[in-house]
Amino acid sequence: MADTLNVNEIIEDFPILKQQVNGKRLAYLDTTATSQKPLQVIEAIDDYYKRYNSNVHRGVHTLGSLATDGYEGARETVRRFINAHYFEEIIFTRGTTASINLVARSYANISEGDEIVVTEMEHHANIVPWQELAHRKNASLKFIPMTETGELNIEDVKATINDKTKIVAVAHVSNVLGTINDVKEIAKVAHEHGAIISVDGAQAAPHMKLDMQDLDVDFYSFSGHKMLGPTGIGVLYGKRDLLKNMEPIEYGGDMIDFVGKYDATWTDLPVKFEAGTPLIAQAIGLAEAIKYLENIGFDAIHAHEKELTEYAYEQMSQVEDLEIYGPPKDRRAGVITFNIKDIHPHDVATALDTEGVAVRAGHHCAQPLMKWLGQSSTARASFYIYNTKEDIDQLVYALKQTKEFFSYEF
Amino acid sequence: MADTLNVNEIIEDFPILKQQVNGKRLAYLDTTATSQKPLQVIEAIDDYYKRYNSNVHRGVHTLGSLATDGYEGARETVRRFINAHYFEEIIFTRGTTASINLVARSYANISEGDEIVVTEMEHHANIVPWQELAHRKNASLKFIPMTETGELNIEDVKATINDKTKIVAVAHVSNVLGTINDVKEIAKVAHEHGAIISVDGAQAAPHMKLDMQDLDVDFYSFSGHKMLGPTGIGVLYGKRDLLKNMEPIEYGGDMIDFVGKYDATWTDLPVKFEAGTPLIAQAIGLAEAIKYLENIGFDAIHAHEKELTEYAYEQMSQVEDLEIYGPPKDRRAGVITFNIKDIHPHDVATALDTEGVAVRAGHHCAQPLMKWLGQSSTARASFYIYNTKEDIDQLVYALKQTKEFFSYEF
Repeated sequence: MADTLNVNEIIEDFPILKQQVNGKRLAYLDTTATSQKPLQVIEAIDDYYKRYNSNVHRGVHTLGSLATDGYEGARETVRRFINAHYFEEIIFTRGTTASINLVARSYANISEGDEIVVTEMEHHANIVPWQELAHRKNASLKFIPMTETGELNIEDVKATINDKTKIVAVAHVSNVLGTINDVKEIAKVAHEHGAIISVDGAQAAPHMKLDMQDLDVDFYSFSGHKMLGPTGIGVLYGKRDLLKNMEPIEYGGDMIDFVGKYDATWTDLPVKFEAGTPLIAQAIGLAEAIKYLENIGFDAIHAHEKELTEYAYEQMSQVEDLEIYGPPKDRRAGVITFNIKDIHPHDVATALDTEGVAVRAGHHCAQPLMKWLGQSSTARASFYIYNTKEDIDQLVYALKQTKEFFSYEF
Repeated sequence: MADTLNVNEIIEDFPILKQQVNGKRLAYLDTTATSQKPLQVIEAIDDYYKRYNSNVHRGVHTLGSLATDGYEGARETVRRFINAHYFEEIIFTRGTTASINLVARSYANISEGDEIVVTEMEHHANIVPWQELAHRKNASLKFIPMTETGELNIEDVKATINDKTKIVAVAHVSNVLGTINDVKEIAKVAHEHGAIISVDGAQAAPHMKLDMQDLDVDFYSFSGHKMLGPTGIGVLYGKRDLLKNMEPIEYGGDMIDFVGKYDATWTDLPVKFEAGTPLIAQAIGLAEAIKYLENIGFDAIHAHEKELTEYAYEQMSQVEDLEIYGPPKDRRAGVITFNIKDIHPHDVATALDTEGVAVRAGHHCAQPLMKWLGQSSTARASFYIYNTKEDIDQLVYALKQTKEFFSYEF
């Protein structure tokens, strides 16, 4: 694997990026919401539908065997990708949100007076399920405070987690600030107090090499669509001993062992948590996306994103009245959230769109973090393997245009 | 819409059917497990990924608007397809199993001593969620008895549903017997007693015109993958007033209105039930599948399936020691479940596969029905728009070969 990636070669795999939007070259800077898909992934899904589409597991005909091999092969690709011990530890879900909700609904070792620890930088999908769990169990929710730069400091982590803590739920990478949390260290603190840790990896899995043995976390959730894969697929990694003791939250299809008229028993992991016809084409697409990323190599991906992010940070900092939120340029993932003074971020995003630049504006499903920032919403640009300095120059040019346009008195 | 369909023209749209399996022409007779996909559906998904892939609802850029239009346009296509009153009544889910589980988890009007009425012909996905609900609420499960031919008789329906009944859960079409239940009549009986009715339409939606106003059911669930659509998408239809009063079962993403540190409130239907990044490409694929079916016309589809089913029933009846389960040939959907005396159905399916014929063998996720049939498993052949009499002749030839092969003394 090379240390650098060939971005021009990569762009050739993404037909969507080669179009014009509003008569301008498209600069797609919204990967944090969803990534684009290379032809290899699109074609892997097509190949499934055109050559071996069938329902899985119970088929004794040839197409059924091929589809089962494809689906279970995808599970093995994911297992290897995150260095999980066992295939039973890989549950396919609809996405990160479904994965986290599965843990919050099914993990039972929490009762009245216990504490669940989260942070204020979490996406709603990693706050609301824990709020609801706390309500159901009369447990309480505690927040690890953030530093001024929107980061966590290990002393605050240690001060918040205690022997009452049963669950620590934290993002690996913030979808707004780009903060990278040291989940390995947080896991150690959680485990010292007998708590488990559940990590929202939606913004980490697309960008860094994951190693469940090294991180030693208990649950880890991520989505396919943010890492070049199709919509409608995600992963829940869970340690086997924990998953074994958890009850399914959905019933039907393959997840049963025996069904009588009034009672049923469940089959083994991982299918126990995969009721109904599985996400077959989606799992196969996700596996192809993983292979595509591994083929580039995560060192090269990291180097490319770091270079783009630092460049963007510097260039954007020179736009008058533009404020960037979160950590300094050398301690963040490839996402830059910002506002321009006195211009609503929706107006910023709309103005950028007329220049072909796609960024997102809003609360980014992180209202508590918006409150912490003292903003009702922000604009956000994010970078991935297919982005270039040209995209950033186009962004910065459009930001300056926007600033100038809104500075006129109407 | 014509009364007949042009099957040769249709087959041209299904590249998977034009291959050989084990050196033989493929006769795919396993649509009840999953249908094949026409090029139009595959290409609609490709077009989404190649031209307007983006996250939806919160995007203010051009791709985001196109993707939102595509996703919400798919919802409108489904609404029109089943003649629902309001777009709020169409919830996109992972599939039928997820849809039924959503109702069983969220519908709250049931308490101790109440009764839930199901049948013994149900798929596990339409039994086990109700078993679990009955356990949670100390309610009880009652079964409408079946006639000798595996059908329901309205007198038995009336005798089973009473004022204690809160929920009636029944398949529109049995995935094993091909029985077609008169859900409109059953809905009337349920409503007379103040109960609601939830229909498993997985095996009906692909084959017949659905009209929610005419059927007057409260909930109706179906899957995309059984009706030419992609895997990983399904629909829950629910009457608006019922859905409005139900709590979400998953939290995160767009389904919130306000999120504070300790509490959250929900947004409006239908997004309240669609936590996380939606199944965008899948919904778009499902809408294209619906258009494909509507373009053929359900009268023509019905006529074609009826002709094939009656022909298959007659031909298969002539195979020595072959027993067909369920209703007579003129009162069933396009599925024939059978056994050959003294040959295990897995051996039958394996032998048929060597002749290029794909059928399913097992308990078809309907163990209580297997018990009722006095069989541990069965073989099952099913027919759809792309099947021909040639497929059935190939099946019958292979069945006779199988019978002959296993009649040798080893």
